[in-house]
Amino acid sequence: MKKIKTITLEWNGNELILIDQRMLPTKKEYMICKTYEDVYVAIKDMIVRGAPAIGATAAFGYYLGLRELSDSLISEKSEDVSKRIFEKLASSRPTAVNLFWALKRMEKVFLENINDDDILVILENEAYNIAEDDIKINKSIGKFGQEILSDGDTVLTHCNAGALATVDYGTALGVIRGAIDSGKTIKVFADETRPYLQGARLTAWELMESGIDVTLITDNMAGWVMKQGKINAVVVGADRIAANGDTANKIGTYSVAVLAQKHGVPFYIAAPLSTIDIEMPDGEGIPIEERNIREITHIGDKQIAPDNVKCFNPAFDVTPWNLITGIITEKGILRPPYRETIKKLFDK
Amino acid sequence: MKKIKTITLEWNGNELILIDQRMLPTKKEYMICKTYEDVYVAIKDMIVRGAPAIGATAAFGYYLGLRELSDSLISEKSEDVSKRIFEKLASSRPTAVNLFWALKRMEKVFLENINDDDILVILENEAYNIAEDDIKINKSIGKFGQEILSDGDTVLTHCNAGALATVDYGTALGVIRGAIDSGKTIKVFADETRPYLQGARLTAWELMESGIDVTLITDNMAGWVMKQGKINAVVVGADRIAANGDTANKIGTYSVAVLAQKHGVPFYIAAPLSTIDIEMPDGEGIPIEERNIREITHIGDKQIAPDNVKCFNPAFDVTPWNLITGIITEKGILRPPYRETIKKLFDK
Repeated sequence: MKKIKTITLEWNGNELILIDQRMLPTKKEYMICKTYEDVYVAIKDMIVRGAPAIGATAAFGYYLGLRELSDSLISEKSEDVSKRIFEKLASSRPTAVNLFWALKRMEKVFLENINDDDILVILENEAYNIAEDDIKINKSIGKFGQEILSDGDTVLTHCNAGALATVDYGTALGVIRGAIDSGKTIKVFADETRPYLQGARLTAWELMESGIDVTLITDNMAGWVMKQGKINAVVVGADRIAANGDTANKIGTYSVAVLAQKHGVPFYIAAPLSTIDIEMPDGEGIPIEERNIREITHIGDKQIAPDNVKCFNPAFDVTPWNLITGIITEKGILRPPYRETIKKLFDK
Repeated sequence: MKKIKTITLEWNGNELILIDQRMLPTKKEYMICKTYEDVYVAIKDMIVRGAPAIGATAAFGYYLGLRELSDSLISEKSEDVSKRIFEKLASSRPTAVNLFWALKRMEKVFLENINDDDILVILENEAYNIAEDDIKINKSIGKFGQEILSDGDTVLTHCNAGALATVDYGTALGVIRGAIDSGKTIKVFADETRPYLQGARLTAWELMESGIDVTLITDNMAGWVMKQGKINAVVVGADRIAANGDTANKIGTYSVAVLAQKHGVPFYIAAPLSTIDIEMPDGEGIPIEERNIREITHIGDKQIAPDNVKCFNPAFDVTPWNLITGIITEKGILRPPYRETIKKLFDK
């Protein structure tokens, strides 16, 4: 029986245990998922977030669903059972590309082994492999990425591209962990990342849990901190990277990139190759979700803006490729011109 | 009897009524100041904030103190009474330059007219004049400043340099009001201005009260909004302007200035001449107050960051003169090189 336990999730061979990221950083609470409906709720209600973390969670959810329904619904065709589980889980966060990718990978293995008596063992292994693969990818990102950092450097990061967004280790924070694991002393400044405060709530918490020196600032302090020479490099994650290197990431990333350029601070994206959308020629075409304005007007239940105020709440922005010093992937660091370096990688 | 009534304060000839800015934008509550101790509390507890608003409030406080104590303490020398009131009020916010300036102006009038039977009338008039002068200055800033805006423009502002920071009309928001008063249609984007949220709580509220079209964004959206071509000009206030034009203002102003330069958006400071510190050669020497980190880790009583997290919380930053398109004052718009244009103005 294969087991896995990280800061984000635990698979104990029987059930999936998720840290409730909504409760961080003030409470450490866990949700135990025994059924695929539990997993559906966990993804939908943002108990778990971050593309790779959602993917692995959904994979275990798919396994839990098959295990559950293969006992109780012997009258139903197993392909239909699979389809029902797939669709339910896929509907938990319809815009998450990684969610579909993980479910499709599970479904493929299911269909290939549909008549195997060990189908449940095979599916559990596959979910386990999806989670383990993510950790391997992140550690590889960390290993390649650590080269950009020197002993004593201070890194600015934005949002949470950490262990909590992945199965473990993280992408942007994986680069920092990689440098520390290779013996360097690294300090971090974390933007709080309004409106959803992933930096304050998750990145600061995760780094403190790992004993990494972190200083929390509000987003609007990043420029001033750079001007004072406190920052040696910026490393952030990515939601989607176009074929020319234009990168969609959490709102505010673009401002940080402009500020980094102004101060001669190198600006890196750290992301797995699966984040690169080779079909998307450039950032112009990347749709930018606008989220509920309550994220701006309220913090928890606390109202901080006037009743009925008009807000603009884009969830992401796009940083053009020419502001990006390098894109750190599990296969190495891509350098501009990205249209060529990305193409070369995908043509292999 | 002279009366004054604005969004920020009311002098009804007998008592000073202040809107409680801590309660905005969700509650409109007022504090009635009948004594100079009331005024001390109002300034100390930030019921009123903004340098010019504090100055006028303190002036009325000084009058209230003299009125109060001239009846009850005939045994005490009146110079001592004045000194006691001055010192009490001056201690309410020791770093507020305008507070001292207003109290000194009141004290001077008191000492010049110490034997006049109408001393209380004279002092009330002086407090009234301090308040009225501020409104006149702001309207003059608005009149000169409106020239930088065209019909249909959208202005980005940061923090609150509005009516609520002054006796009325505002400085940065005075420029917007000036343009609207001259018949132009102007829209505003307001940065929420973490950590103290003056943009969300005060600027958005004040503009909505005045029927001005305002859209609230988080600070880290400013760059993205500029990139989309939504912003025609940035106008912000100032806490202190050095002799070369370097300007200290609310944290985040510097980042906005860098972003404006990157996008070819003109960046203006709007401030009265009293904000210019001709003795300060450049921004290097301006001390930057660091405030309590609870402003970052909590919003009201709500904790949003881990226990014991390290924070950096500078209250201000300094925008170098070469990022500033113009400094809008009550005497006209100063243009670079500011060391020369400011000197010329002060040599007159």
